[in-house]
Amino acid sequence: MNKNNFNYTSQYWSVVQQDTEYQTPIFRLLKRKSRLPEENLEGDFYIIDAPDWINIIAITEDQQVILVEQFRHGIQEVTLEIPGGAIDGDEGPLIAAKRELLEETGYASEDWIKLGEVSSNAAILSNYTHLYLARNCRLQQEQNLDEHELIELHSYPVDKFLTLVREGVIHHSIVVAAVAHLLLNPELME
Amino acid sequence: MNKNNFNYTSQYWSVVQQDTEYQTPIFRLLKRKSRLPEENLEGDFYIIDAPDWINIIAITEDQQVILVEQFRHGIQEVTLEIPGGAIDGDEGPLIAAKRELLEETGYASEDWIKLGEVSSNAAILSNYTHLYLARNCRLQQEQNLDEHELIELHSYPVDKFLTLVREGVIHHSIVVAAVAHLLLNPELME
Repeated sequence: MNKNNFNYTSQYWSVVQQDTEYQTPIFRLLKRKSRLPEENLEGDFYIIDAPDWINIIAITEDQQVILVEQFRHGIQEVTLEIPGGAIDGDEGPLIAAKRELLEETGYASEDWIKLGEVSSNAAILSNYTHLYLARNCRLQQEQNLDEHELIELHSYPVDKFLTLVREGVIHHSIVVAAVAHLLLNPELME
Repeated sequence: MNKNNFNYTSQYWSVVQQDTEYQTPIFRLLKRKSRLPEENLEGDFYIIDAPDWINIIAITEDQQVILVEQFRHGIQEVTLEIPGGAIDGDEGPLIAAKRELLEETGYASEDWIKLGEVSSNAAILSNYTHLYLARNCRLQQEQNLDEHELIELHSYPVDKFLTLVREGVIHHSIVVAAVAHLLLNPELME
């Protein structure tokens, strides 16, 4: 990721104080008092702090994209997405991606490529999401889901997968961001 | 958006109780106790509730994409993004997009196209982001920024904009999602 590979002219705010206002099992809410002395500015900013996430465009040996259907509590809707989840402790993003793919779908791959990395939401989230492409996936075991996870599996050819994104059926922003990186690296699909 | 235009088989959880745990100026933290009786499941889920957001791929008459550089408190970094923001009250997404483009950049357009709509983060955010393409933008006035907003403007040809995304210089997930919808609708750039 080259997020700093640009000649920015903006000034950096300094954190004066940071407090954890609320802790949940998957993120904590921070209140940051920050200051930009050069502009005589100070303010309180509220940040959702979470570990980095990963997601995976997983494609089987016969060129089917593996999709997960599940109820999402944020929007109170059932969604169709690519597999993904949070990095667990210090396992690192690739290990997390392999683990989540296996747990959510039962598939494994020996052909992993990093598609890119995005800030999950630079304004209010502290973390990044690591985007992977897993090619030549093979079914290895049964699903092994977390508590409260109920996931139905689907698979579609790549063209149909892209149509589902274009039509808004697949609409999670970070999933759609992974698709942008796939489209910007067409050589990976050859 | 056709987010429900798919034959889902998953069951919907029901909200048993919902409490606002914390209120900030731009979102509130909800605790939802939800239940799935068919599976004998119940749990507490934490949701960030915010108004819908908009962002805009704005292209000038001479085919330059207008980009905004600013400090982002979530990741404590300066970023390069497309213009965007939150819908204000009941103004609606297109009005919000026109307002934010004008405020952040001073540009206006009479040629707006809806690129798509994404869930900002279906798992933990309640809201959606409306993605627009504004073509033939013309400079109309000076920037008119909110308190704490300091925005530097840049503009690049479309090819260079896409390279900045591919290389990870532009990395906000919802900005990258807008790029996916642009790439999936190439006829809009002709």
